[in-house]
Amino acid sequence: MSDILRFGMRGDTICALATAVGGALGVIRVSGPEALTLADGLFRSKSGKRLDSSPTHRQYYGEVVDREGQVIDDVLVSVYRSPYSYTGEDSVEFSCHGSRYVLRKMLETLIQLGCRQAEPGEYTQRAFLNGKMDLSQAEAVADLIASTNRATHRMAISQLRGRFSNALATLRDQLLHLTSLLELELDFSDHEDLEFADRGELLALSHQVQDHITHLLDTFRAGKAMKEGVPVAIVGKTNVGKSTLLNRLLHDDKAIVSDIHGTTRDVIEDTTVIRGVCFRFIDTAGLRDTEDTIERMGISRSYEKLASASIVIWLFDAAPTPSEREEMERRCEGKSLLPVFNKVDRGEEAALWEGALSISAKYGQGMDELEERIYALADLPEVSENDVIVTNARHYSALSAALSDIERVTEGLDMGLSGDLLSEDLRSCIHHLSEIVGGEITPDETLSTIFKEFCVGK
Amino acid sequence: MSDILRFGMRGDTICALATAVGGALGVIRVSGPEALTLADGLFRSKSGKRLDSSPTHRQYYGEVVDREGQVIDDVLVSVYRSPYSYTGEDSVEFSCHGSRYVLRKMLETLIQLGCRQAEPGEYTQRAFLNGKMDLSQAEAVADLIASTNRATHRMAISQLRGRFSNALATLRDQLLHLTSLLELELDFSDHEDLEFADRGELLALSHQVQDHITHLLDTFRAGKAMKEGVPVAIVGKTNVGKSTLLNRLLHDDKAIVSDIHGTTRDVIEDTTVIRGVCFRFIDTAGLRDTEDTIERMGISRSYEKLASASIVIWLFDAAPTPSEREEMERRCEGKSLLPVFNKVDRGEEAALWEGALSISAKYGQGMDELEERIYALADLPEVSENDVIVTNARHYSALSAALSDIERVTEGLDMGLSGDLLSEDLRSCIHHLSEIVGGEITPDETLSTIFKEFCVGK
Repeated sequence: MSDILRFGMRGDTICALATAVGGALGVIRVSGPEALTLADGLFRSKSGKRLDSSPTHRQYYGEVVDREGQVIDDVLVSVYRSPYSYTGEDSVEFSCHGSRYVLRKMLETLIQLGCRQAEPGEYTQRAFLNGKMDLSQAEAVADLIASTNRATHRMAISQLRGRFSNALATLRDQLLHLTSLLELELDFSDHEDLEFADRGELLALSHQVQDHITHLLDTFRAGKAMKEGVPVAIVGKTNVGKSTLLNRLLHDDKAIVSDIHGTTRDVIEDTTVIRGVCFRFIDTAGLRDTEDTIERMGISRSYEKLASASIVIWLFDAAPTPSEREEMERRCEGKSLLPVFNKVDRGEEAALWEGALSISAKYGQGMDELEERIYALADLPEVSENDVIVTNARHYSALSAALSDIERVTEGLDMGLSGDLLSEDLRSCIHHLSEIVGGEITPDETLSTIFKEFCVGK
Repeated sequence: MSDILRFGMRGDTICALATAVGGALGVIRVSGPEALTLADGLFRSKSGKRLDSSPTHRQYYGEVVDREGQVIDDVLVSVYRSPYSYTGEDSVEFSCHGSRYVLRKMLETLIQLGCRQAEPGEYTQRAFLNGKMDLSQAEAVADLIASTNRATHRMAISQLRGRFSNALATLRDQLLHLTSLLELELDFSDHEDLEFADRGELLALSHQVQDHITHLLDTFRAGKAMKEGVPVAIVGKTNVGKSTLLNRLLHDDKAIVSDIHGTTRDVIEDTTVIRGVCFRFIDTAGLRDTEDTIERMGISRSYEKLASASIVIWLFDAAPTPSEREEMERRCEGKSLLPVFNKVDRGEEAALWEGALSISAKYGQGMDELEERIYALADLPEVSENDVIVTNARHYSALSAALSDIERVTEGLDMGLSGDLLSEDLRSCIHHLSEIVGGEITPDETLSTIFKEFCVGK
């Protein structure tokens, strides 16, 4: 397949800033058939060597100049020749001083020389189109860059290293085996004395595939929670110490995070990492300590906010009445409720029921146990880089479609339908699994939806 | 001189993030005697090759793992061996995915392995201590990174490429020549029949040095203005269109700036670049259009703010009275006053005096001429990368001290003082010039003052 056919209009040479503005260093990436020649248009190596005659993986020190010959910067240039680059195309990386002016001027000059400013994710998209990675690995690149804690990081690394792709490949092999057995059965159906595979074996194979897909789908709840943060609500009457508790829960992570220069405070507002998993706190301020009806209205408003929480920390500083407890348990049905008695430091004791916890948010008493309980209630699997966990809604929907297909196959086998009636469902199942890794021709809309979520320069 | 003596406690291996957090890519730098060995502690190349046996300027693809053997990222590593690195020491650069978690984890692991988190500017400081650049060039690195427009960029590039250092070297040579002539005069002062250099020649040489230093000092006003932005005030009564004009002046630059992903809006708030020079606008809202005394009080308050402006744009939408004009001109003495009649679009005409300008801030009429006039009033030299312009207060103060020294020498020569009475001033002059490039032993306080202004990772 020629490059023109394969890329359509995308066979041009692109450039972009791959780093954020504001560091000591900025990296500009150029990729495409003309990358080396275009880079030669603004780079002068100390040794006088031209980049377009350079072997792959070589570095040169020199200056970049604008169209008027004015020096923009002294830079280190790396040359990567096709196919030994990230995109699989000829590529050049300029490592420049991290000045806003320098980086802008270099991009301007590259564009004047004939480069096009890359679109978000276009480098990774090209890597996919050139067979350097499959679609689920490409998606993992964006997840990896976005990862802010151990859990999201491990899921992304696992996916990037092809664990998910391998699981899908195994499923695909099983489905192809099933297909060929059914075809064999069809081809030789007139030879009644031949038994190639009895229906029991086919059914077992189909069940096996079905179970595997079901298992993958089951990981999605955990994967989604880990990716977006497990939603936790802290509810309680006013002045029981909700803010103090929240600040204490948020404190530790923030201290670590602020070590890295440039971290935006906003991003981590109201989320904290407990044992490597991100927890997202939902503001439920509003339980009012007034009389009867009005109090109940206030409680109702806060309960609405609870809907999105999967864990509810119920904070109080005096033992709740049995009816209060009953009401709260009813409201939190289907969620994990964690009753917490605060202010033990005041020396008071509440008669607590089993499963309730005593802490002092102010002095930190009982916080370790609280965090342990929160983590346990999240009920998330410990992720290792070998685990396959579905985190992506696109994958979930493709797997769901594949599950329907294989369920119809199992049903058909069970009912004794002939192979030709099952082959379409089998094909559809394989197709839906292939969609995830982009194994067949992937529609442009799908690609643009996936890659527009990337940052520019990746 | 041994490394230990030279660096004191600084001969250890340092690591830092060299890019800002938030891009597709993050670069972590490791530098010091153990850089390659420490990097081998977390890097596993695909080929199995160890970095500490690698030649300089080689790149390897592989994975980095934490202390538990968990994969942190797939990275590209560059090896630079002493002295062929930025710092002059053995160095390693990890090019990683720009994830906050990945970058933090990598730095943590490097520190666990024995690296120390680098202090601001420590890489460049080591480059200076290892003779890779002089002190004024090291300072230019920080200026270059901070540069946001053509003028500051060119001044920094010029200084980085040693133009200033060369000018100082020339001065130093002249001073050494002067010194040797004076010593010769002393040595042979008993041979009355010998004339080695007449005093006229010595005086001419001294004047030449004095003029050169004076010229360098003269560039500081322009250099400072270009570095910090030329301060411009827009004054005028309320509702004459000050905000409209400011927005229009700011508009063009912002549009260009926002091209680059990650640019912080705050940084460019109220500054704009005209013909490559940065202008900084001072808020002078407060001229009140009320009667007599109160109006004058209001005007007074705004005039106080004018003190720091070097250019004043006086905006009005009706011809000022002669006394208003007289008052404004008196207040702006020593500054450049630019009277501007706004709202010409309303079809009104004010009888304007020479030097006044007509514009429509709303519709953009006359804006080109206004910008041209603002630029001209700034009276800044066009900077090319060959120009030497003093931009640094430390350099200014050293040059001022050198000027006093050489002035005393000139005076002494003029008065016919003998050479031995002049040599101390000559030595002092050479010393002050050397301070700028850090040619002699530079005190630790000076170094720490200079490098603490740097960002971490440079």
